[in-house]
Amino acid sequence: MAKNELLYEGKAKSIYGTENPDELVAVFRDDITAFNGEKKDCFSGKGILNVGVSAFFFSMLEENGIKTHFIRMGDERSMVVSKLEMIPLEFVGRNRAAGSLVKKFPFEEGQVLDPPLIITDYKNDERGDPPICDDIIYALGILTPEELGQVREMTLKINEILFEFFDKLGLLLVDFKIEFGRLDGEIVLGDEISMDSMRLWDKETGESFDKDVYRFGKGDVMSAYGRVVEKIEEWKRQNVR
Amino acid sequence: MAKNELLYEGKAKSIYGTENPDELVAVFRDDITAFNGEKKDCFSGKGILNVGVSAFFFSMLEENGIKTHFIRMGDERSMVVSKLEMIPLEFVGRNRAAGSLVKKFPFEEGQVLDPPLIITDYKNDERGDPPICDDIIYALGILTPEELGQVREMTLKINEILFEFFDKLGLLLVDFKIEFGRLDGEIVLGDEISMDSMRLWDKETGESFDKDVYRFGKGDVMSAYGRVVEKIEEWKRQNVR
Repeated sequence: MAKNELLYEGKAKSIYGTENPDELVAVFRDDITAFNGEKKDCFSGKGILNVGVSAFFFSMLEENGIKTHFIRMGDERSMVVSKLEMIPLEFVGRNRAAGSLVKKFPFEEGQVLDPPLIITDYKNDERGDPPICDDIIYALGILTPEELGQVREMTLKINEILFEFFDKLGLLLVDFKIEFGRLDGEIVLGDEISMDSMRLWDKETGESFDKDVYRFGKGDVMSAYGRVVEKIEEWKRQNVR
Repeated sequence: MAKNELLYEGKAKSIYGTENPDELVAVFRDDITAFNGEKKDCFSGKGILNVGVSAFFFSMLEENGIKTHFIRMGDERSMVVSKLEMIPLEFVGRNRAAGSLVKKFPFEEGQVLDPPLIITDYKNDERGDPPICDDIIYALGILTPEELGQVREMTLKINEILFEFFDKLGLLLVDFKIEFGRLDGEIVLGDEISMDSMRLWDKETGESFDKDVYRFGKGDVMSAYGRVVEKIEEWKRQNVR
């Protein structure tokens, strides 16, 4: 379906309208940013890798009973998605302590978090995506307590599914960020699930296969992202149904 | 009781040991700071005003069934308190939106928060007292879910008592910050309740009678603090038992 007007431009994705008022096109750009936009670059082909991985995980989650906005792939760097009324929260699932959690609180880098932590940030670039607590979520009318409980449950289930899958690839899902929206009164998973939105460590060596490679100049981000895609492709070949 | 070695020096209080291992002396200094210590000054007599107000509120809360660390006044700028094992959290009760809440989230300054918000920050100067969510409180082993529920209840009750009292003085309790500690396995209120740790607005004019006078250069902080003390003294005269 042909995309028409640009509706929203995020740090790494652009969202377009289509002729169908219920469908949007999400274009995964090659832009990459870190530290709330302070570091910025563009890596040719990044969008293609991330859209493929996102589509793969959205399909896997749908098969596991999690509703998502994913409808089908568009061209090689875009997907067609249901138009959601986005919920301005980021849900961060954490299986190990890393990143901002370690900077802000006395956790050791890599410390096991059992049960996994589900943390919420208020999605607002100008305000710096501040952490938001349940009381403020209710006071702003973003979610009711029942809805927040439901989204937390969904996040925990998504974490379980992704964690188990990456484990089979030899990767540790350290943490990830997801976003939700409303579709016909139901809360469904939106946004993306990609190497831009997760921390993935090699289970043996601890090597990063995610945006930390870019954030902290740990090496070639495109070959790190490419390795994840290769591992997924290899798994697909071994699990043809 | 004579104080001996300095155990802890905060931004505006110094805590000393005494001959009794269960008792400490909290000295309320004249130092005042804002913006996490970026702005600093010293106002002669501030400590005396704040220790008196704190002692008054601790006594009032005790009469209302809230256990506190307050034992008795020491000299004019100090109080003798029970030695607590402090819980490294700040509990912020908010009846109206103001300050950091308005900076970080789309609330209007002065917006009524009903029910009141109870927000938690992790008390750690070097880390900038970051907001902390329940899951992280449990993961760090700071409080159990039962304890956190209990402290939230205490904070709500303290808010009710303080709000009603200030209302009688013609003042609106906008928000306040309190801290708790453990004493013989029980959680009790510690720290202070003073013009340094609350926002108080004139109910009619909205004028500030708290540290915002200092933070934002709104006038003479000592006369603002002094007005609160006068109002309390006036109330005491009218309510002699």
